[in-house]
Amino acid sequence: MNIRQLFDYDTWTYTYLIWDEKTKEAAIIDTVLGQVERDIQHITQLGLTLKYLLETHVHADHITGAGPLRKKTGAKIVIHKNSGSKCADILTSEGDTFKLGEQEIRVLHTPGHTDNDSTYLIDGAAFTGDALLIRDCGRTDFQLGSNEALYHSITQKLFALPDETIVYPAHDYHGLSQSTIAEEKAFNTRIGAQKSLETFSAIMDNLNLPNPKQIHIAVPGNLKCGNIS
Amino acid sequence: MNIRQLFDYDTWTYTYLIWDEKTKEAAIIDTVLGQVERDIQHITQLGLTLKYLLETHVHADHITGAGPLRKKTGAKIVIHKNSGSKCADILTSEGDTFKLGEQEIRVLHTPGHTDNDSTYLIDGAAFTGDALLIRDCGRTDFQLGSNEALYHSITQKLFALPDETIVYPAHDYHGLSQSTIAEEKAFNTRIGAQKSLETFSAIMDNLNLPNPKQIHIAVPGNLKCGNIS
Repeated sequence: MNIRQLFDYDTWTYTYLIWDEKTKEAAIIDTVLGQVERDIQHITQLGLTLKYLLETHVHADHITGAGPLRKKTGAKIVIHKNSGSKCADILTSEGDTFKLGEQEIRVLHTPGHTDNDSTYLIDGAAFTGDALLIRDCGRTDFQLGSNEALYHSITQKLFALPDETIVYPAHDYHGLSQSTIAEEKAFNTRIGAQKSLETFSAIMDNLNLPNPKQIHIAVPGNLKCGNIS
Repeated sequence: MNIRQLFDYDTWTYTYLIWDEKTKEAAIIDTVLGQVERDIQHITQLGLTLKYLLETHVHADHITGAGPLRKKTGAKIVIHKNSGSKCADILTSEGDTFKLGEQEIRVLHTPGHTDNDSTYLIDGAAFTGDALLIRDCGRTDFQLGSNEALYHSITQKLFALPDETIVYPAHDYHGLSQSTIAEEKAFNTRIGAQKSLETFSAIMDNLNLPNPKQIHIAVPGNLKCGNIS
């Protein structure tokens, strides 16, 4: 599978354009509304047919470009069923699969940052959304987040993947672009080195983070798939 | 070869950490002074031995971290001989090679943005510095830049590489992380689609760009390999 990482400078969001070289069938993971024109141009230049707009969860920090991209390409919007999305085309459950040519995308339900986080597994790579970040993880203090659920998702589902699996997160705030499961098992500052649930919860409960600046616009905007104008 | 792209948010600079999996011998291309701690931590966690600090040219928009990184790791600083660097360990010419384990890095002299631009060729990838950017190229209006030289470097040297060669630039201002030679031949807005030298020069001569904000600090700082404190 071809993987191209794209970055939104304003919201520090990673978007991923993935495609099967043989058939040119493509998907985008976690688009950003302000980057729709860039993404369309890129897809066109590469001669790709966009089949899926995969969302890792209902984001609180940026508005998705999925709705406008669906309008221009006919691609289907995919998100976990717990999102309660009324505008998505496909609501997923653990184990669902999608095809790009002969290549398969598999859904792993990895809740805890929200109740609707999906990790997409593709050809030795895990697109982990805000569940597992590089040396870090998503916060758990809103949108039905849960320390217990995130601890379980990461330690029982993501850390059970092969060590060499490449981790592609939805954000990074230090300029890092990818990691591996082995690295996160060893060095993740919140949950690596076999930290207990108690230690993890103590860390998460003391982050004292402000709400994301855009949360009151982003969540309702995302529940409309970014069709806000 | 393992390749990890790192980003400096303040100067939009891409740094590349590359290593041979078997021997763990590593090199960094275009470090940034403010990211030395991050880079050291990453190298340590990955268990790498840093052999080379490769500079694509004397940068005008950020200060290299090569000097401080050499001090901490013993790696050798490498830059093209035209730089006139007094602090580098190795001054290169076209065709020079460096080894990481059994893997080879080859120097291609691609002047035009400055007179000392090197592209590093490694395992099907071209680290093009500011010579060839994604859909774009480096400016030519200072540091002995030259439209003719850059046109020649891109069309005769870089576009002569295999079409599938992955292009990793030193900067991108649209959130794009990589390209290919085939894409740039077709879609580069300044020099793609077989533009003539006259067309290219007319574009370059009318960019009307302000000087990089840090040029008066960056160039002298880089001629000291970032050893400025």
